[in-house]
Amino acid sequence: MRSWEHFFSKRVVYGNGAIAKLPYLIDQFGANFVLIVTDQGIKETGALEKITKLLQGNRVSYVTFDDAKPEPNVELALECYRFAQSQQEVDLVIGLGGGSSIDLAKVVALLLSFHGHPSDYFGENLIPGPITPLIAVPTTAGSGSEVTTVAVLTDDENVKMSISDHFLRPSVALLDPELTLSLPPYVTACSGIDALCHAIEAYTAKSSTEMEIKEGAVFRGANPISDMIALEAIKLLSNHLTLAVLQGDNLEGRSKMLLGSMYAGMAFSNAGTAAAHALAYAINTEVERPHGEMTGILLPYVFRFNAKAIPQDKILKIAEAMGSDKTILNQHIATDVIVKALFDLLKRINLPSKLSAIGVGQSSIPDIAEKSKGIDRLMRNNPRTPSLKSLINLLKKAY
Amino acid sequence: MRSWEHFFSKRVVYGNGAIAKLPYLIDQFGANFVLIVTDQGIKETGALEKITKLLQGNRVSYVTFDDAKPEPNVELALECYRFAQSQQEVDLVIGLGGGSSIDLAKVVALLLSFHGHPSDYFGENLIPGPITPLIAVPTTAGSGSEVTTVAVLTDDENVKMSISDHFLRPSVALLDPELTLSLPPYVTACSGIDALCHAIEAYTAKSSTEMEIKEGAVFRGANPISDMIALEAIKLLSNHLTLAVLQGDNLEGRSKMLLGSMYAGMAFSNAGTAAAHALAYAINTEVERPHGEMTGILLPYVFRFNAKAIPQDKILKIAEAMGSDKTILNQHIATDVIVKALFDLLKRINLPSKLSAIGVGQSSIPDIAEKSKGIDRLMRNNPRTPSLKSLINLLKKAY
Ligand SMILES: [Fe+2]
Ligand SMILES: [Fe+2]
Repeated sequence: MRSWEHFFSKRVVYGNGAIAKLPYLIDQFGANFVLIVTDQGIKETGALEKITKLLQGNRVSYVTFDDAKPEPNVELALECYRFAQSQQEVDLVIGLGGGSSIDLAKVVALLLSFHGHPSDYFGENLIPGPITPLIAVPTTAGSGSEVTTVAVLTDDENVKMSISDHFLRPSVALLDPELTLSLPPYVTACSGIDALCHAIEAYTAKSSTEMEIKEGAVFRGANPISDMIALEAIKLLSNHLTLAVLQGDNLEGRSKMLLGSMYAGMAFSNAGTAAAHALAYAINTEVERPHGEMTGILLPYVFRFNAKAIPQDKILKIAEAMGSDKTILNQHIATDVIVKALFDLLKRINLPSKLSAIGVGQSSIPDIAEKSKGIDRLMRNNPRTPSLKSLINLLKKAY
Repeated sequence: MRSWEHFFSKRVVYGNGAIAKLPYLIDQFGANFVLIVTDQGIKETGALEKITKLLQGNRVSYVTFDDAKPEPNVELALECYRFAQSQQEVDLVIGLGGGSSIDLAKVVALLLSFHGHPSDYFGENLIPGPITPLIAVPTTAGSGSEVTTVAVLTDDENVKMSISDHFLRPSVALLDPELTLSLPPYVTACSGIDALCHAIEAYTAKSSTEMEIKEGAVFRGANPISDMIALEAIKLLSNHLTLAVLQGDNLEGRSKMLLGSMYAGMAFSNAGTAAAHALAYAINTEVERPHGEMTGILLPYVFRFNAKAIPQDKILKIAEAMGSDKTILNQHIATDVIVKALFDLLKRINLPSKLSAIGVGQSSIPDIAEKSKGIDRLMRNNPRTPSLKSLINLLKKAY
C-alpha cells in the first residue's frame, strides 16, 4: 500500500449567531486593521451591517470593499487589492458572501502578502508562504470555499483559471446558518446540488493509494479521512436540500446544508472533484449558466457511467446515506436507486436534468468532450478513466 | 443554539512505509538541522535506524536524543532541551515513539522557540506563538499525541502536570503502521483500550453548545465534527483491538488501530475526555500502573454511570459501531450490550476489570473520588455531573 496525505482546515466556528465571535477571532490574530470583501447583494440583506456594527462596537478598525461579483475576474482582484493598498496596512481579511466573494478575498489576501499579479499564481503550489490571515464567512451552502485550497478567477480572455495551494485555505471558517436564511430557492438549489456533487465526486474519486500523483499535488484522490467526511456530507446534503429550497426559512434545513457543504469542501479539497466538474467547466466555455446547474445535471449521468468502477460497499453506503433502507436495497440495484434519487432530487428542487434545457448546442458535444478530457487535474480523479467516445456518449445521454 | 468550535491538525500522512516521506516533509519545512527525540526501546526495534538511514541517504543533518522515558519529568525535558541547544540551531523536531516520547518532543519544540522552564507553560494557552515545527511519528496506537494539544510531564513533586495549547499540535502526524508491528500484546492492549476510552469519552462528552466554557478553553465538549470522528474511532478500535493484541503481526489490525487512535486523539483534543480519565489520574496518585490499564478498567463502569445522561441515539450508534446488529439491539437494552461488550473486550485482551486487581487500596476510594472531582478540566465534560457520593459508589462497583 502506498501512503496517503490529508490536509485539514485549522479551525471551524459554527452556530446560529456565530458571527458575534468575529471581534474575538480578530483579536486572537492581533489584527489592527481589517479588510471586509463582500458584494452588493450581501449588503442588501443586512449581513454586512450586522458585522460592521459588531466591529464598531468592539473598536475594530476596518474598511469594506463591497464590489465583489459572481465569477470575479483578474481586473476585479487587482482593483480590490489596489483599494486595500490605498488604506493603512491590512493585517486580516474577512471574506463575506458566496464562493465568489470568498475566492476574491483569498486572492486579495494572497496579493497583500506576496504582491504581483494573480496570474503569477495560476496553477498549483506557487504561493511561497502563509497568506494574510483570512476569516471566511459563507452566506451560501455550496462551494465550500471557506475550507478549500482553491480560488477561481476569470482571466482577460474570459477563461476560468484557478489558484490551488494549501496556503489558500482560510485561517478560520466561520459558519452562521442564519446568514443563509434569505437565499432565494434557485440559488439554494444550484449551490446545494453543487455541494452534493462535490461530496459524491470526492467520495467516489479514485483511491489516493492507487494514483500516480506528484508530491505536492492538491487533489490526491480519496483517502479514509476524506471518505468519512464526504459520506457525512452526502447524508446531510441529500436529506436537507429539498427542505432548504422549498422552505427557505427553516433553520434546521439551512444549518445542515451549511455544515454539509463545508464537509464536502473539506473532502473534495483533498480527494478532488472529477468528471462532472471537468465536463461542467468545459460546458461553461459554451454557455453561461450557474456552475451548480451544470454539475447538478451531470451528476446522475456521471454516476451511472462511473458505477462499475466504484467499490460496491461505497455504492451501498451512498444509497444508505441518501435515505434508502436495507429492504429497498435488497430488491433493487443500488446504482439505480441512487441515480433515481438524484433525478428525483433535481425535480423536487426545480432544476433541469438535461443539457438541452440550458442552451447547450448538440453540435458542441464533441468539443465539450474533448475539452473536458484535457482537464487532467480533475479527470485523473475519476474512478473510471473515460475515453473521448465514452464522454461523447455520456453527454448525448445527458442531452 | 450557541456556537461551537473545532480545531484540526493541519496534516496527516499515513501508510505502510510512510516514514520514507520524512526527507520530503523535512524539505518542505526548509529545515537544515533536525532533532530526533526517541527512546531506547525504539532504538532496539530498529525503527530509529530506518529513519537515520533515510536522513543520511537524503543528506539531512540531524542529531538524536534517545533517552526519552515513559512518564517524562521536567528534568528530562530540560536535559533534552539543553542537549539540543548544545548543537547547531535545530529548526525541526521529530518525535518518534509512544505518547511519552512525542509529549517530550512537544515540550522541547516549545522550549526551543520560547525558552524558559516547562512549568512556565503548565496550564492552558500559555504558549505565545507557533512552536518549532514538529513531525510526530507514533509507534503505539494509543495516546493520539501525534494530533493532540497536550503534553504531560511529571513535576518535581512527582505530580502529573499538563501543557494544553493549540500551538502544541504537531505540524505533521506521520503514521506508519509497520512501526507498530513489534509492540508486545500487553502494551498493545493498554494503549488500545485507552484510545477506545478517548473515543467513547469524547463521543459521549457533554455537548459543547450546552457548556459554559471560557473562550480559548482547549477541551470544549462534543461537537458534530468531533462526534463524526469519535464514532469512526469507536468502530475501528473496538473491532480491531483483539486482533492487534492476539495477532500482533497482523498488519490490517495494526493499521486500523493506528488510524483509530489518531481519530480518537482528534476527537478528544476538542471534546475532552471525562470521568474515566479524571478517576484514572486520581488513582495514579495512589498506584503506579499503565495509564490505559486504569482507563480500561474504569470505562465500562463510567459508561453505565453516565448512560442515562447520554442521548439515546448516541448509545445506539455506539452499540452499532461496536458490532451489534439491529436484531440484538431490539431485544436488549443498548447500554447493557455496550457494557457487556467492553467487559468481553477487556477479558479477550487480558486486561483486569477490577481496581482490586491492580493494587488500589479499598480505603483510598474516598480520597480518589475527592481528587477526581477536583479535576474540573475533565469532569466538566462528563455527560452526567457526579456527586462525591456517586463517584465513591462508582469506584466501589469497580473495585
Ligand atoms: Fe462545484
Ligand atoms: Fe488516556
